[in-house]
Amino acid sequence: MAVIVVKIGAQTLQSIDSTLQVVDQIKQLHDTHQVVVITAGVHTDFPTQTLQREQALWYAASAQQTSATLAMSLQNAGMPALALTARQAGVYTDASYLAARITDIRPTEVNNALQKGCIVVIGGNQGMTKQEVTYLGEGGAEATAVAMAQQINAQQVMILSTHDGIHTADQSVITEATHLTEISYDELLEFAHLGAHMIHPRAIELAKQFEMPIVMKSLLSQKATIVKGEKEMEKDMIVRGVAFEADIIRLTVGYEQQEQVSLSALFNKLAQHHINVDIIVQARLNEIQPTVSFSIAKEQFAETIKVLEDHKAQLGFAFADFEIGLAKVSIIGSAMASNPGVAARMFDCLAKASIEVKMVSTSEIKVSVVVPQEEMIHAAKTLHGEFELTTEV
Amino acid sequence: MAVIVVKIGAQTLQSIDSTLQVVDQIKQLHDTHQVVVITAGVHTDFPTQTLQREQALWYAASAQQTSATLAMSLQNAGMPALALTARQAGVYTDASYLAARITDIRPTEVNNALQKGCIVVIGGNQGMTKQEVTYLGEGGAEATAVAMAQQINAQQVMILSTHDGIHTADQSVITEATHLTEISYDELLEFAHLGAHMIHPRAIELAKQFEMPIVMKSLLSQKATIVKGEKEMEKDMIVRGVAFEADIIRLTVGYEQQEQVSLSALFNKLAQHHINVDIIVQARLNEIQPTVSFSIAKEQFAETIKVLEDHKAQLGFAFADFEIGLAKVSIIGSAMASNPGVAARMFDCLAKASIEVKMVSTSEIKVSVVVPQEEMIHAAKTLHGEFELTTEV
Repeated sequence: MAVIVVKIGAQTLQSIDSTLQVVDQIKQLHDTHQVVVITAGVHTDFPTQTLQREQALWYAASAQQTSATLAMSLQNAGMPALALTARQAGVYTDASYLAARITDIRPTEVNNALQKGCIVVIGGNQGMTKQEVTYLGEGGAEATAVAMAQQINAQQVMILSTHDGIHTADQSVITEATHLTEISYDELLEFAHLGAHMIHPRAIELAKQFEMPIVMKSLLSQKATIVKGEKEMEKDMIVRGVAFEADIIRLTVGYEQQEQVSLSALFNKLAQHHINVDIIVQARLNEIQPTVSFSIAKEQFAETIKVLEDHKAQLGFAFADFEIGLAKVSIIGSAMASNPGVAARMFDCLAKASIEVKMVSTSEIKVSVVVPQEEMIHAAKTLHGEFELTTEV
Repeated sequence: MAVIVVKIGAQTLQSIDSTLQVVDQIKQLHDTHQVVVITAGVHTDFPTQTLQREQALWYAASAQQTSATLAMSLQNAGMPALALTARQAGVYTDASYLAARITDIRPTEVNNALQKGCIVVIGGNQGMTKQEVTYLGEGGAEATAVAMAQQINAQQVMILSTHDGIHTADQSVITEATHLTEISYDELLEFAHLGAHMIHPRAIELAKQFEMPIVMKSLLSQKATIVKGEKEMEKDMIVRGVAFEADIIRLTVGYEQQEQVSLSALFNKLAQHHINVDIIVQARLNEIQPTVSFSIAKEQFAETIKVLEDHKAQLGFAFADFEIGLAKVSIIGSAMASNPGVAARMFDCLAKASIEVKMVSTSEIKVSVVVPQEEMIHAAKTLHGEFELTTEV
């Protein structure tokens, strides 16, 4: 019998109705599969003076309660369910209490329970070292699902939620956006980083490494997106989707002489202060005035300005300038690397629509542009049309 | 430095105010003691079809959260606190998931943490077997406190709550009731069984066995009652307190011939149906009609009648009768055994107050009478005065 690992978010288990939908879906899967279910715990805020260790204990207990509660719901529906702690399920991690990384999975008890026909339910954000209880932090339950799937030879991981998978763009904004039935790990990584928060990048990275297929399935419909290796993907779809992100700020730092420019000094200093820099553009306005521009998120603006002011002398720049009210729009597609004309087609399309491009960034599977925020939706819709994404794949 | 084990109920940690009071008390204790704190988890109801195992997991997680939260509150107040799970604290139990009994305490990690100056916080209702997580059920946290105290050579167990210990009677009814500064294990067992639910009998039994002193201390005042061995108690106080319990029903079963009376058949049958029988009186109304009377709690009346009816032929009795609207009043004192006149003085006192005694039961440290419920308070007050309990000891 095929083995499947199903991941369910804590949100989905907050209401009785959606819990019953989950129970029903698992019941159907259990008819044809050996099933392992990974749940996540709930979040809360703690006083600032407390140690990470005790917070991890609290969160791990929350994950344990969610798994116990789901197991009881399954039992109540007549299914043989068994909740296992991280220790029992053999989920070993490093000692980073609140952001532990999985180091090993020893699924002896999981396999024994599956052999007996049990549905195994594991609190997916819980981990352990030899002595301590750890918490896997953001994306931990999804990472546990993928790692466990690999160790117990599961055919796939299913992410069960109220979302029906990935679309060519955010449906709430681009009404023409269509559902994707397949996507590659790399493409999904770009979507995830760009704000389509349905699955954490750490789980996608792990799935890519193990070549473990992930099915993102809706509780409410039969729609799903399967995430798998590029080699199996259709190659004729150059652009797979359009993503966009508002509230971008462009900062420009200017120097008097080229010799004063030190990218490493500048970006190390910003990194020390936990400022996430996205697009970086180095340019010379003229022969004697080199500049470096970079984009940041709006909420880090004040902190960034403070860091620059505090270290102006040390960083050796002459002036700093900024432009607010910007947005980022990206096209994503794994076949883009072999189609050098895609970026040009994008710029041409935006130019025809009279949308000013402030910054550009390209990767093998993504081209991003920074545009005025008021043009963001216009740009996204225009690109969505240009690359013929409105037809269901 | 002396070692102390402090037990705190989940109720006490539900509000921020009382949590801060707890933190303050522990801070004071930590100045002069090595401190281990035992907390309890919260309770909830589960669907009936669920297995005990998963309920135990849920409850154990709740105990873990309470201990982690208190440890964080202590850290926040600048104290070095460390929360330990049952596994880390070495609390081994049998495999009875929801009512596990402590089989061993291996406090290596507890002792190590104490040596480093840490306040150790343990979720006291959590236990473990080699593979499984267990829950210690009612009184589990108090039992853990006593067992842990014994294993780490603590001087005493402190039960910290909003109660200031034991009184000669329920203060809400008998306003003349006075506070007891000392009580023996056996006396407290009688009080606990009779409804003064401040500490679970299983913990008192354990403390008696280990001769571990228990201090019942108020968070709100300096008042406390110390529970310890009888040999250190004052011997001149014959009666230590008055307890009472409403809603008692007396059942009388009558037989045609003495040969038909089988106490073991009758009470085994009731025990099979989980009916708790308290006082038993065997009498002959006349030469040819022997009877057995026993008292039960009101809530078990319907079930008791059903059991008697269903097994009338088998049990061989001729008729069953009952009297409702009764109450039990008891006087308690460990020196009673050596003072045979105490029971006589009690009956005399009740007769002078025109209170009818329906049933009598005596033990070495207790005399109980069943009286009409409307006379319960009158009887309790009269006895409280008769045995001079209004003076603070």
